[in-house]
Amino acid sequence: MQLTQLLRKAARERPQDVAIVDGARRLGFAELAERSARLAAVLHEFGVRAGDRVGLLAHNSHRYAEFLMGAWWAGAVVNPVNTRWSAAEVAASLDDCDTRILLVDEHFADMAAGLPERAACLRSLVFCGNGPPPHGMADLEALLAAAWPAADADRGFDDLAAVMYTGGTTGRPKGVMLSHRNLLVNALATAAVFPEPLDRVGLVAAPMFHIGGCAQWLQLLVALRARTVLVPFFDELRVLQAIQQEQVTDTFLVPTMLKRLIEHARFGSFDLSSLRTVLYGAAAIDETLLAAAMRALPGVKFQQLYGMTEAAPVVCALPPSMHAPGPQQGRRLRAAGFPTAVAAIRIVDASGNEAERGATGEITVRGPTVMQGYWQRPEETAAVLADGWLHTGDAGRIDEEGLLHVVDRIKDMIVTGGENVFSAEVENVLAEHAAVQSCAVIGIPDADWGEKVHAVVVMRPGHTVAEQALIAHCRERIAGYKCPRSVEFRAELPLSAAGKLQKFQLRAPWWEGQARRVGGTAAAGR
Amino acid sequence: MQLTQLLRKAARERPQDVAIVDGARRLGFAELAERSARLAAVLHEFGVRAGDRVGLLAHNSHRYAEFLMGAWWAGAVVNPVNTRWSAAEVAASLDDCDTRILLVDEHFADMAAGLPERAACLRSLVFCGNGPPPHGMADLEALLAAAWPAADADRGFDDLAAVMYTGGTTGRPKGVMLSHRNLLVNALATAAVFPEPLDRVGLVAAPMFHIGGCAQWLQLLVALRARTVLVPFFDELRVLQAIQQEQVTDTFLVPTMLKRLIEHARFGSFDLSSLRTVLYGAAAIDETLLAAAMRALPGVKFQQLYGMTEAAPVVCALPPSMHAPGPQQGRRLRAAGFPTAVAAIRIVDASGNEAERGATGEITVRGPTVMQGYWQRPEETAAVLADGWLHTGDAGRIDEEGLLHVVDRIKDMIVTGGENVFSAEVENVLAEHAAVQSCAVIGIPDADWGEKVHAVVVMRPGHTVAEQALIAHCRERIAGYKCPRSVEFRAELPLSAAGKLQKFQLRAPWWEGQARRVGGTAAAGR
Repeated sequence: MQLTQLLRKAARERPQDVAIVDGARRLGFAELAERSARLAAVLHEFGVRAGDRVGLLAHNSHRYAEFLMGAWWAGAVVNPVNTRWSAAEVAASLDDCDTRILLVDEHFADMAAGLPERAACLRSLVFCGNGPPPHGMADLEALLAAAWPAADADRGFDDLAAVMYTGGTTGRPKGVMLSHRNLLVNALATAAVFPEPLDRVGLVAAPMFHIGGCAQWLQLLVALRARTVLVPFFDELRVLQAIQQEQVTDTFLVPTMLKRLIEHARFGSFDLSSLRTVLYGAAAIDETLLAAAMRALPGVKFQQLYGMTEAAPVVCALPPSMHAPGPQQGRRLRAAGFPTAVAAIRIVDASGNEAERGATGEITVRGPTVMQGYWQRPEETAAVLADGWLHTGDAGRIDEEGLLHVVDRIKDMIVTGGENVFSAEVENVLAEHAAVQSCAVIGIPDADWGEKVHAVVVMRPGHTVAEQALIAHCRERIAGYKCPRSVEFRAELPLSAAGKLQKFQLRAPWWEGQARRVGGTAAAGR
Repeated sequence: MQLTQLLRKAARERPQDVAIVDGARRLGFAELAERSARLAAVLHEFGVRAGDRVGLLAHNSHRYAEFLMGAWWAGAVVNPVNTRWSAAEVAASLDDCDTRILLVDEHFADMAAGLPERAACLRSLVFCGNGPPPHGMADLEALLAAAWPAADADRGFDDLAAVMYTGGTTGRPKGVMLSHRNLLVNALATAAVFPEPLDRVGLVAAPMFHIGGCAQWLQLLVALRARTVLVPFFDELRVLQAIQQEQVTDTFLVPTMLKRLIEHARFGSFDLSSLRTVLYGAAAIDETLLAAAMRALPGVKFQQLYGMTEAAPVVCALPPSMHAPGPQQGRRLRAAGFPTAVAAIRIVDASGNEAERGATGEITVRGPTVMQGYWQRPEETAAVLADGWLHTGDAGRIDEEGLLHVVDRIKDMIVTGGENVFSAEVENVLAEHAAVQSCAVIGIPDADWGEKVHAVVVMRPGHTVAEQALIAHCRERIAGYKCPRSVEFRAELPLSAAGKLQKFQLRAPWWEGQARRVGGTAAAGR
């Protein structure tokens, strides 16, 4: 039960089949395995031993796949670095889990050159990009050419495979420890029920440093016959071109990506007829966007995935059948889905007891994909993995059909005058307004009510709307206490690298110097 | 990670879809879950507690599915009883793992009535068949009607799920201990690469007390959309009728079943056009039969599965693509396949070291589906699970393409004058003769050579062939030392309930009172 076994199996069974399409570069499975085995040898030469962390700071490319497999082949643990971080943040995360060797591509070579001064643990920088290596960095291609392929180090089962930092939505990144078993079972459980298993061409548009992109690739590797198409980073035109050119059959998109794709001016000019399945998730989707996407891609099966890095990541899936038109469609599309075959879900109240069926509480998860813990954070680990269940920090409920609804992040829940307001509900109502392109609802301090509801709105180009008109729009649709008291207009919302809204950035200026009580139970998680 | 989760998930997501077709009886997933939860309550009333064994002695029916799920729902461990056994054998296996409650259908009620006298552990007999309950047995349907559905006992992960007795091919049955994780990971790993995942209608023709039938059903339960069709036991006409009537898309057959099916006089008169995939395995297949089956079912994808109860069970699969015509086809069709995504295979020599690539040795297996051990047999467990690898007792080699070839059972290998003869090779040559319907090759005592090669042959109806003609047929095709020295003609070969040839029965009269040295390494296993 080893992640390298997925690649070795494919290399044995279909050595010449295309494993990775990376622009003009195409690698067969045998070539990918060969290069991974050589990379393992190179890492050993740098002193990497079983269990050591190896970092990569790069955009998506075939080298990302080689990095993952090569590090596992060497017996090491991958530390895929968030490409949106500042040098200070990168350095802190490298030091946090003692990553001594960092691979870097041409896009991040300049930042990386300054890292040894900031990260005390860092011993070696290896250049794995296009073009000549910068001064002071070893050249991976030259090292690979000189290396003799290493034997697989034979790590697997509960051996640590990855330390993946979460913290896109909080200020303090934590290293999520995922084992070979965690990642492999997730790949199997999602591949077993993938709606299109044969002759797939999967496009990885999400960053591979993120569990979404990484797990998507591993699932493609499990599939009976699939190739993986990579784009260096999400860009509407690149994605549209890749789908048309490579006859992509399926992809995973976070809602922001899906929105930008279908709203792109040239969307209609591409032939996307090869597309059969769109997976979406990693952030809440608003109903207006989902409906628009289903209209824009009428022949495509949609499947929502709900999960988190701590669950490697998939916990629930909303299958294509639940997207079908009918009297239930509205409720179903607001759901996150049913648990996977290996995940169990329990909704607990503030005292940690199982909530009544239908009641809202914290979503907790148990299963073989749940992380081993946070790297060297025993207290935070104990808080989140209390009683054997992962406490997600998400508020949710299970409806009469057994569908999980994620109501909000516990910490995004606004408590105003003793009433709980779920920001997602208010955001859904705001998004229905024609002038609203995107929005975020947060709680801000209020002397009378503790918190009051505040909306941050990005207007759709060519539209305008007044603050009071938006509030009135909400009043017609939801209870008064849920409606924004104030609306702020902005050019854009702060997003993480994975496309997740970073509400803490919106909240920070309001709460400076004040403690905000987080609703519900101890909302550890991310 | 619980086996009951598979059923609960299906019951939640598609409650009204047909789960089981059992003759005229059709059960939806919600009904199957409801009946399983009631059965769990009934078992609790009989005093069954977490970890206790519960037996079933019955042909395949919807009750078999309920028994498996109901026992797991109750927190118990299933002991599915071999229906081919004598009362003495059944009693010994019940006593072996202290099974105190036995469910029994109408076919085995008479045998069961005598079991309490033979099996000291047995406390309760429950009748779960059609018709009125025999005297002294509780009536399951009446108990179910009166029961209140129990809550799921929440056993999973490494909790014991089944004790399945092997011993079809040896004289001394051992209880293979399989956990929830063993069986669930096997279902996921095989479902993930099943060539036809959508809208399947799977026919379970193998007995469900055997790991083959049991695992096939669990895999169908994992599938996105599948229903299961059951026949009480393998019978050519019933199977042909079921395929036509229920529009069966896939089934699993042991070679003997496949042979009887395609050779049936009325084979051509059924519409089998719904059939898309045939899985075969659990015993070696001869090339003549496989070629005939592929000709008889030209539109069907064939996939071989190699495994054993001790591996829950699948270790290797030979995918449909490896059955395609071409210069490699002959070699590939003689192979058992490639390891699954979770299994690792190592060929070891007689001293336990990894054999050179291409060399023949004992097949050893590692992975998350490998059993926990044999029930209360620490010594045999230690011998078979030595060094963390399952020693299968099969001799095999890995070819240049990475395909595993099972050459023979280690103990079926014949050592004659210092030469190793693999009985399977000789059997393949004999099977090519037009007059041979089936055959078995064994070693019998010889004063000069230690062992000599002996063939047991069943002639095809309407054909005859002389002993010397058959030996001459072999001499034209294989080395002289491999050819049978003697041929014995019989009306039929002794088969286990799972359709496996029981060579030990053929050998026994020859070796009575003599010790036979078993070739290769310590050939524990079965």
